[in-house]
Amino acid sequence: MTDFTSVGTQFVQHYYTTFDSNRAALEPLYSDQSMLTFEEQQCLGRAQIIEKLKSLPFQTVKHQIVKCDCQPTVNNGVIVFVTGNLMVDQEQNPLKFAQVFHLAVNPNGQGYYCHNDLFRLNVG
Amino acid sequence: MTDFTSVGTQFVQHYYTTFDSNRAALEPLYSDQSMLTFEEQQCLGRAQIIEKLKSLPFQTVKHQIVKCDCQPTVNNGVIVFVTGNLMVDQEQNPLKFAQVFHLAVNPNGQGYYCHNDLFRLNVG
Repeated sequence: MTDFTSVGTQFVQHYYTTFDSNRAALEPLYSDQSMLTFEEQQCLGRAQIIEKLKSLPFQTVKHQIVKCDCQPTVNNGVIVFVTGNLMVDQEQNPLKFAQVFHLAVNPNGQGYYCHNDLFRLNVG
Repeated sequence: MTDFTSVGTQFVQHYYTTFDSNRAALEPLYSDQSMLTFEEQQCLGRAQIIEKLKSLPFQTVKHQIVKCDCQPTVNNGVIVFVTGNLMVDQEQNPLKFAQVFHLAVNPNGQGYYCHNDLFRLNVG
């Protein structure tokens, strides 16, 4: 059995390190079937998703993972649920965020891609 | 194509209404393969899950949904990501929570059950 916790935690560490240094480099982690819901806005496919992520209006960003829960799911996928803090530009107070990733096995059976991605700031 | 947003929002409205009135009645929404991660604690199968939910140490509880995002996923499933407020007993200040449900189609092809359930209070 796959160690789903390792798969999930390694994915999110790689994801946020890449996000915080070069968002365009996240493209290989998505497929043309991937979906992103970012604060209500829906994007379909890696091109739209990367366009959205690149358009976010901050210069510097740092994600800090507070909790990361993983579960195996259907078709050998992994669901990863992260809560954390987001440091943006010169802002002193971190924003709280929560994000869900559904990692699906690549069509060639090797490794995972992000099939579902849902992001929310915890406000309201 | 299934209207995944209706499926997800109707599920969570039913789920929280049931949770807030009679937690034991949530049992049919889970299967023997279902998983719950509740603040780090992992439960497998509907019996363990319901036991955990029934054991939660409050008398009255009310979930208020603030945001509910839905996405279709593999095998005609639906991922639902809820952020909201939790009113517990006489506590005046709501607790913020975030919860993820992965709804999978029942083996007979009719309706959905909750395959994955991950719950976090937004603290820390």
